Amino acid sequence: MPTQLSAGKLRNLMALCDEDGRFNMLAIDQRGSLSRRLGEVCGRKATHADMAAFKQTLVRYLAAYSTGVLTDPIYGYAGLATELPGHVGLLLCYEKTGYAASEDEKGRISSLLENWSVAKAARAGANAVKLLLYYHPDADPAVVEAQNALCRRVGEECREHDLPFLLETVAYALEEPSTNCVAYARRKPDLVARSAAEFSKPEYQVDVLKLEFPGDIKFSHEYCNAVFDDEDREEAYRLSDVAEFCQRVDECAGVPWVILSAGVDIKEFLANVDLACAAGASGFLCGRAIWKEFMALYDPDDAEQTRMVDFLGTEGAINFLKCNAGAEAAQPWWEHDRFGGLENIVVAGADAGEAWHADY
Amino acid sequence: MPTQLSAGKLRNLMALCDEDGRFNMLAIDQRGSLSRRLGEVCGRKATHADMAAFKQTLVRYLAAYSTGVLTDPIYGYAGLATELPGHVGLLLCYEKTGYAASEDEKGRISSLLENWSVAKAARAGANAVKLLLYYHPDADPAVVEAQNALCRRVGEECREHDLPFLLETVAYALEEPSTNCVAYARRKPDLVARSAAEFSKPEYQVDVLKLEFPGDIKFSHEYCNAVFDDEDREEAYRLSDVAEFCQRVDECAGVPWVILSAGVDIKEFLANVDLACAAGASGFLCGRAIWKEFMALYDPDDAEQTRMVDFLGTEGAINFLKCNAGAEAAQPWWEHDRFGGLENIVVAGADAGEAWHADY
Repeated sequence: MPTQLSAGKLRNLMALCDEDGRFNMLAIDQRGSLSRRLGEVCGRKATHADMAAFKQTLVRYLAAYSTGVLTDPIYGYAGLATELPGHVGLLLCYEKTGYAASEDEKGRISSLLENWSVAKAARAGANAVKLLLYYHPDADPAVVEAQNALCRRVGEECREHDLPFLLETVAYALEEPSTNCVAYARRKPDLVARSAAEFSKPEYQVDVLKLEFPGDIKFSHEYCNAVFDDEDREEAYRLSDVAEFCQRVDECAGVPWVILSAGVDIKEFLANVDLACAAGASGFLCGRAIWKEFMALYDPDDAEQTRMVDFLGTEGAINFLKCNAGAEAAQPWWEHDRFGGLENIVVAGADAGEAWHADY
Repeated sequence: MPTQLSAGKLRNLMALCDEDGRFNMLAIDQRGSLSRRLGEVCGRKATHADMAAFKQTLVRYLAAYSTGVLTDPIYGYAGLATELPGHVGLLLCYEKTGYAASEDEKGRISSLLENWSVAKAARAGANAVKLLLYYHPDADPAVVEAQNALCRRVGEECREHDLPFLLETVAYALEEPSTNCVAYARRKPDLVARSAAEFSKPEYQVDVLKLEFPGDIKFSHEYCNAVFDDEDREEAYRLSDVAEFCQRVDECAGVPWVILSAGVDIKEFLANVDLACAAGASGFLCGRAIWKEFMALYDPDDAEQTRMVDFLGTEGAINFLKCNAGAEAAQPWWEHDRFGGLENIVVAGADAGEAWHADY
């Protein structure tokens, strides 16, 4: 039984993956965190020009290694348009940076970028719209419903414009003091799996999930002794358990999914990629793990960004190629159970033959 | 002085060319002529399934050699969506096949595909909209104005959706008995140049012109003695004159232009590509010159189209690679005088900085 996929979503998903259906994608849509760091580097508040120049330099030297680049409409888009190779896909974020705290100050509520829309993203040539939702399934029900409603709204907008909808969920510590503690490390696998299950429901119309790694391997038996940084940590589980967490996420994900980097170091991210892809992830959408070291090299007085460029061409490229090598084991998105292979996908309504174009 | 180009047009033009800004594009949007030929081959009227299968087979085996594929929404699109590699651009035609004769029966009036629109093409993931206009600048003024008005309308629709507009003009014999005579061969250079000049006016909002070759080299001194077919012809000019005709077209074209094949044989088309690219064309959008021999191999009883496939993988690929080799000499579209180099192009409104996304 063929699986139907609407014309625009199909065409644009194809534009975001490699010829084998794997997503090797670069995220440079950071705003708040990037602005703070560049401000430190510059010794003054980062300007629009700083943000735009940093992002443009990343695109110029790293985009060629990717199958798609995620940027933002405020700082990233205008400088990217002449730099992004035509064969590399484009994703644009739709959320406002950060979040508002809920009334009980525990929950996080996301909102959309003002004066932007899926219609604008489509006109600007985006192949997908990305929404970041801070999400904790055990938050106050009003908070949960607000986030769900936002997701439904964006899903509907994407349907109207027949553009793929990529949803990113990021959980947070509700009961624990922070996300860097053994209690949160133990809770995280469940949070990621339940988020994946929730947003795989058809009512959200999500096409690709961008998920956190379902665990924190810095708290694993194998890596808890200061392998990735200088900190010794309490052991929460073994890597064999983490492999099972990844498996559960894959079972919960009713749509293809990719793994995000959440600012971890490249070594840790590569281990995450291996585990996620072994469980069925279709690749990655990676930001700071690839390029966070380069923020310190930004030079507001150098239009050529020579210091950045020196390292982007070597370390940056190597980081990216290592991620791509890891994602060789990823599952092509069209092999996900939802589709069952490229040969099983047909354009929705194509059985109408001559009438397809009129009905579309 | 930087040249502004709107965000969506820029992004989508990039998606249609190679990394050097050259268009090596395949046209399979033929309808009327293809239906007639497949009907002959099948010994009965060609069906929607015949047309769709033929086009899908072409995409499957030839698209990988192209930077963009032009198809039609009726027969071509649905079967192409799973076949077209994501890194290859997509163009969709917007005109109804053929034309209506004007009241004096001399002029040709084009019309748009019913139940289709630029909005639909944008939603379906097209990177450009193509309009074919039959055009003779000396036709009855009412005919000329009808064609001009249609072009303005499509230009405006493309502006609304910020999608590149590719206009194809095809002239016809008004005073001559046919297009295959020395009188028409002599007139053609002027027709092509004047069409290029007309539709380069800003009021039409054309981004790329798809032009006929400005001459008929079968009537040239060098090729008139049955070089391309078995017919001896009267000499109309020398190839050095034809090179000048191409130069004049390039001077008239206020936007980047590509050359079309109009069903000539591959050898003649390759000579056309050389001459056009030497004068400043940015590549080709070629249909039957590459694949017309394969129509005779279509087999309605073979789902695999083995006979076609055997030749597509050899002759078809070779034809395409020869065209690509010829287009190595093409002018990158961004080097056209309109732009003056990629480094000179900026996203329209980008000087507004932070406000770009709100104003867009």
